[in-house]
Amino acid sequence: MKRKRRLSTPGLSHVDRGGEARMVDVSDKPATLREAVARGHVTMSAEAFGAIKEATLKKGDALHTARLAGIMGAKRTADLIPLCHPLLLSHVDVTVAPASGGYDIEARVRTSGKTGVEMEALTAVSVAALTLYDMAKAVDKTMVIGEIRLISKRGGRSGDYSA
Amino acid sequence: MKRKRRLSTPGLSHVDRGGEARMVDVSDKPATLREAVARGHVTMSAEAFGAIKEATLKKGDALHTARLAGIMGAKRTADLIPLCHPLLLSHVDVTVAPASGGYDIEARVRTSGKTGVEMEALTAVSVAALTLYDMAKAVDKTMVIGEIRLISKRGGRSGDYSA
Amino acid sequence: MKRKRRLSTPGLSHVDRGGEARMVDVSDKPATLREAVARGHVTMSAEAFGAIKEATLKKGDALHTARLAGIMGAKRTADLIPLCHPLLLSHVDVTVAPASGGYDIEARVRTSGKTGVEMEALTAVSVAALTLYDMAKAVDKTMVIGEIRLISKRGGRSGDYSA
Amino acid sequence: MKRKRRLSTPGLSHVDRGGEARMVDVSDKPATLREAVARGHVTMSAEAFGAIKEATLKKGDALHTARLAGIMGAKRTADLIPLCHPLLLSHVDVTVAPASGGYDIEARVRTSGKTGVEMEALTAVSVAALTLYDMAKAVDKTMVIGEIRLISKRGGRSGDYSA
Amino acid sequence: MKRKRRLSTPGLSHVDRGGEARMVDVSDKPATLREAVARGHVTMSAEAFGAIKEATLKKGDALHTARLAGIMGAKRTADLIPLCHPLLLSHVDVTVAPASGGYDIEARVRTSGKTGVEMEALTAVSVAALTLYDMAKAVDKTMVIGEIRLISKRGGRSGDYSA
Amino acid sequence: MKRKRRLSTPGLSHVDRGGEARMVDVSDKPATLREAVARGHVTMSAEAFGAIKEATLKKGDALHTARLAGIMGAKRTADLIPLCHPLLLSHVDVTVAPASGGYDIEARVRTSGKTGVEMEALTAVSVAALTLYDMAKAVDKTMVIGEIRLISKRGGRSGDYSA
Repeated sequence: MKRKRRLSTPGLSHVDRGGEARMVDVSDKPATLREAVARGHVTMSAEAFGAIKEATLKKGDALHTARLAGIMGAKRTADLIPLCHPLLLSHVDVTVAPASGGYDIEARVRTSGKTGVEMEALTAVSVAALTLYDMAKAVDKTMVIGEIRLISKRGGRSGDYSA
Repeated sequence: MKRKRRLSTPGLSHVDRGGEARMVDVSDKPATLREAVARGHVTMSAEAFGAIKEATLKKGDALHTARLAGIMGAKRTADLIPLCHPLLLSHVDVTVAPASGGYDIEARVRTSGKTGVEMEALTAVSVAALTLYDMAKAVDKTMVIGEIRLISKRGGRSGDYSA
Repeated sequence: MKRKRRLSTPGLSHVDRGGEARMVDVSDKPATLREAVARGHVTMSAEAFGAIKEATLKKGDALHTARLAGIMGAKRTADLIPLCHPLLLSHVDVTVAPASGGYDIEARVRTSGKTGVEMEALTAVSVAALTLYDMAKAVDKTMVIGEIRLISKRGGRSGDYSA
Repeated sequence: MKRKRRLSTPGLSHVDRGGEARMVDVSDKPATLREAVARGHVTMSAEAFGAIKEATLKKGDALHTARLAGIMGAKRTADLIPLCHPLLLSHVDVTVAPASGGYDIEARVRTSGKTGVEMEALTAVSVAALTLYDMAKAVDKTMVIGEIRLISKRGGRSGDYSA
Repeated sequence: MKRKRRLSTPGLSHVDRGGEARMVDVSDKPATLREAVARGHVTMSAEAFGAIKEATLKKGDALHTARLAGIMGAKRTADLIPLCHPLLLSHVDVTVAPASGGYDIEARVRTSGKTGVEMEALTAVSVAALTLYDMAKAVDKTMVIGEIRLISKRGGRSGDYSA
Repeated sequence: MKRKRRLSTPGLSHVDRGGEARMVDVSDKPATLREAVARGHVTMSAEAFGAIKEATLKKGDALHTARLAGIMGAKRTADLIPLCHPLLLSHVDVTVAPASGGYDIEARVRTSGKTGVEMEALTAVSVAALTLYDMAKAVDKTMVIGEIRLISKRGGRSGDYSA
């Protein structure tokens, strides 16, 4: 019940009793190993799909650019998401693979820290998806970025999670 | 035909003949007024939806934080997307509104520049969506960010577009 | 006495014996819990004060934007202040409240780290004050940002401090 | 009257009718030459004042570090202030000089752009002041940063201003 | 002669008469098309050279990562070099190719702006070289980054230059 | 042999078996004290050398600007080098000294972390060299940045290294 009194509504940890946004205080939490996996999808036309595939077959740059942007994006999470705590990421891996009418993106992020890395994994997926979109936007303006969600989460007080 | 010979595949403007990623040369393009509108959606549980709504009714911070993060994210686009040209945005507006099982996000971006602002609008939507997710993630781990797409685009050589 | 010989002048820890600026070596210091509180004030005309108050009553965005900018600014401290050590902030809270002819700003920052967070708290106040100024500058060009100072400091070798 | 209807309150150009923060649309404004001058002051103990002066006499690094941080800070303004438009600064000059119980800081910023550079000049002063504070904080914890204000402003539709 | 009197020493345009660093005032200069080409070299052991080559033959990621980092680095130049003016780059191209005992790096940068893009081209080469070093540092600790220099420069008042 | 199977080629720790770039997983490595020293050189004409020297004798700003840029650059390493892990630097020192036909630059960086700080030291040297170049480029367009290399490295599993 202690938590309910402190927050305006159950669970919105970034909002205090008065409804004001704030960065949660994690000072007293121990630094533990944490991992999060997130996924997303970019749906595109057969033409855009083929153009990226063909470019990838030659030198691999199209998908690689998306993967690299995702890795770098993960490191910028606390700059982008106002109430995110800065974390020292110990591992970031992003994969991009062809899948049903487009490309699947998956990011795996690890840290030894006081908060989880869900936002870092989701940010990696989002930035990789935006980059893939940027590569193919001259071919297809109807692409859709979607299904960005948390797949699993390990470590931390709130326990493990698997979608 | 000139364009086809220069690129490895029709339309992948960020990939050259050899399959290497590069930043398109827009040196000779005139700076014109351009606008792009993008939208996305965050699907969430009734509990998360309600928690954000309740916090918003009090002080408005939950949705406002997402909107502000989207505006700031738009300004960071060229930092995040490797091959994006830097642009001086002359207007960014982000709205977040309750809609079917979650929240709709819309971003409108304008510039006077040599390239379009699709990526800036899509980045604004993505960062706002990630921020909304961050606000409610303690309540609901099954949220999904999706339907991020271009709604319309005005200005520039390639003509106007409307989804 | 050891310290006096190492520095060009007593106390300027960021300046070595030869007068050259440098980042202090904190490698051997333990990481301990630290907290700093800073305050500042933006003095403005009654018209500007009222305009912000009115906007705040409606949706809360005026003051909220300043608070959020302060929180994000705290996370950028080591990017802005040349000789500041990067720190993983575990908590940042910024409040903005009406007070004698303007608005008072207070920032509270915590970390588990090798150096204190005074600069982070002062940066949060400064960026929040600049943002409040930016909101009201079309109404009042005579606003003054001032009284930015350290209120208290806990943790670390140099002991606690209270203004 | 047109403006009044568009805004929730006269003059808060960054807040729309509904009270929501936004980035003002300057798409239709011409790019003109603009200049702003801002000033501020860091009040400190005689000991801190002397320590900085002594270090400066040797190699000049103490004041120089503050000036350089101010110049770099000006370039980061749109990253820090949420609703600021990005601008291509064509000139930034920061001076730091001993004055009544501390140091005076002045910043002069110029651009050819669609909006003024008040915030860039004020940000330069703020970051220079914070850096000076950082240099002397081991000697004096009672320093106060204050009197940060706009001195003059030239160019743009709203006309010239002089404090 | 006018210039000589303004500067402390002939040519150090970033240093004023008093010896203080500043950002040159380019407010009155017209925006013209400018280009700069810079080159550099990373010398490495046969083992490191082969490891990068082998990885590149498979998926191209080793050299591609360096090229992409160079492109992104060019966009960060004004953030890194204190007195550099921000510029809107209209084109950045980085190539990395095997050459006498290591890899040659070349960057070509274009803008329509008030100052040249030498620093952007040199920064692109430097960041690409550092990234290549990072890829191979586990194999070879004796690598040397060198020969970073301006190859050519076009546009602007000071005329064209070719090494 | 375990390592060979995991990597596509011996030693390219940032490239996996399939040739894809990734950020090495250091989650299980302990945080230990690490130090790296790197050096580089800027070769320039007697005129440029003298101009910097003269400016330095007056106020010290020319060399100081380079040193400060190097310190700040070290803190941006993980932003610039795609696969670098973020680290909390506990010490950065950069020196710039006249030497055979130009200036020598040395950077010393320390951290308590899971990976070494070679890249941070090399980045500090590179950014300081670029800044020195920027200061003198109006006098001499034939300057060459070179000899950027690791001098020594302490701490971490791979043992100490001295060039």
